[in-house]
Amino acid sequence: MKTAITDLCGIDYPIIQAGMIWCSGWQLAAAVSEAGGLGTLGAGSMHPKVLDQHITQLKASTSKPFAVNLPLLYPDIDAHVATCIKHQVPVVITSAGSPKKYSQQLKDHGIVVMHVVSSTAFATKAEAAGVDAVIAEGFEAGGHNGRDETTTMVLVPAVVDAVSIPVVAAGGIADGRSMAASMALGAQGVQVGSRFVASEESSAHEAFKTAVCEASEGDTQLTLKELTPVRLLNNPFYQSVNHAYGEGASKEALQELLGRGRAKKGMFEGDMTEGELEIGQVSSLFNEVLPARQIIDQMLTTYRETLNQLPKP
Amino acid sequence: MKTAITDLCGIDYPIIQAGMIWCSGWQLAAAVSEAGGLGTLGAGSMHPKVLDQHITQLKASTSKPFAVNLPLLYPDIDAHVATCIKHQVPVVITSAGSPKKYSQQLKDHGIVVMHVVSSTAFATKAEAAGVDAVIAEGFEAGGHNGRDETTTMVLVPAVVDAVSIPVVAAGGIADGRSMAASMALGAQGVQVGSRFVASEESSAHEAFKTAVCEASEGDTQLTLKELTPVRLLNNPFYQSVNHAYGEGASKEALQELLGRGRAKKGMFEGDMTEGELEIGQVSSLFNEVLPARQIIDQMLTTYRETLNQLPKP
Repeated sequence: MKTAITDLCGIDYPIIQAGMIWCSGWQLAAAVSEAGGLGTLGAGSMHPKVLDQHITQLKASTSKPFAVNLPLLYPDIDAHVATCIKHQVPVVITSAGSPKKYSQQLKDHGIVVMHVVSSTAFATKAEAAGVDAVIAEGFEAGGHNGRDETTTMVLVPAVVDAVSIPVVAAGGIADGRSMAASMALGAQGVQVGSRFVASEESSAHEAFKTAVCEASEGDTQLTLKELTPVRLLNNPFYQSVNHAYGEGASKEALQELLGRGRAKKGMFEGDMTEGELEIGQVSSLFNEVLPARQIIDQMLTTYRETLNQLPKP
Repeated sequence: MKTAITDLCGIDYPIIQAGMIWCSGWQLAAAVSEAGGLGTLGAGSMHPKVLDQHITQLKASTSKPFAVNLPLLYPDIDAHVATCIKHQVPVVITSAGSPKKYSQQLKDHGIVVMHVVSSTAFATKAEAAGVDAVIAEGFEAGGHNGRDETTTMVLVPAVVDAVSIPVVAAGGIADGRSMAASMALGAQGVQVGSRFVASEESSAHEAFKTAVCEASEGDTQLTLKELTPVRLLNNPFYQSVNHAYGEGASKEALQELLGRGRAKKGMFEGDMTEGELEIGQVSSLFNEVLPARQIIDQMLTTYRETLNQLPKP
């Protein structure tokens, strides 16, 4: 399957596994890359030394292209960038910050750079900063999210119209139907997060994988908009945030309630009560943990079926 | 073009014009039906006598099938239902209420019944109530909206999986790309609202049409969630709602602020300051008022191009 994204990344299928904190270590990235997609390390939850170890392990596990996701607000981002350059990482996906500072440096070292955006304005800025592609992520996506609340259905064609570099769709994509829908909207590839949280190779805690598989429609909500908007699974911690809103909590009180380390506690350590559980709306659409390869194979099979079934005009 | 929806409604193309208060009278419905789609009268803003007149005029203007949208919470809903039956309206689209009470009565008179839903739970209830099809409307849609905030990308496949009747996609659809995306998600047709507000035949005030064409990304927001969630265009009235939220306004205070007649004032009378302006996110994706037929022709042209350009696996 050939698109601008498979060409850019040197992969077989235009399926990018999202770099998700606490869920995407070398095991998941290796499985996705070996299956013909683009596996991604989520560096946002790794100390610089840990990222170095994961890249080393990943390179030992696959000779295929892979990516590292770098949230640009990461405290020691310079160390992460240096690690990526040292290892000649094939692709770096930047997010949560301005792509201006590092894009050219990474590209000068032959690294393909993609940047995650939640709006057309950010997409054109990323293009101006010299990135090779943008990932347009809609309101339905898990984790941190844009303030405009533009959904994938509206955001992707808007970004496609606004930039001349390839666009990857993200948010709400977990099977071959939403993959085909994304391509119809003009995307050249898809980024898939939530579905891979519930993969065998994901480093998410088993309790979190189970919760994701059991999630129903309406079980996630975009919240903490006064801090950084984030889509969370409904659990006692989420309910305590909601309760705080009901009491008219200040921004400072919300920050204190959130505290530190809650994402790790929930997604990595399996505390389903006190943990912060970042996941997308699309978690309601699947219900079993599968090997990453099987997730990709099923997406491609359904994608083919979907194309054949589209009503012809 | 043949789908379960074109068969059910006896139309040429599976494009349903949404019944929108103050914007969709007989002129728009006639133009859409004449162009091969399903034109719809928005009865929610019509007195029973006015609906009767519009149906009479519409029948005089086209011999093709058309629909009436009935918001089931309309105060004199019995009169509206009686008017639809009297005129042997081909299709009734019910919304905002339980489809239990009227579906069978309408069907007994040979009327096709579709019901607008914002969740899978409502879709299965509508199917159980005997409706012929459901319209699954996502978070990005204009006007009144569901509480779960599920987007079209996630809602449509979920509803398709949950019911055995045909599903129409709504929310975020304004061109052939989003139409193709909707079909890929499993829909058998699309309902298009915002795009037809900015049509020549729409009864929206010219000032509202202009505002819709000028809307940018992020200019609409789902608000008034304590009352009935509604997606509004950012204008001074919307800002006063936001200000009230900042002051911790009670539900009663919000109700008083909203008052009565604001939708008419804005959308029909053209008061862009004090009016309530209901429109979808997709308003950011088009920028000129066109005849309804041209909107449909362009959708179909782009739909065909989109299908041809989808990357083959």
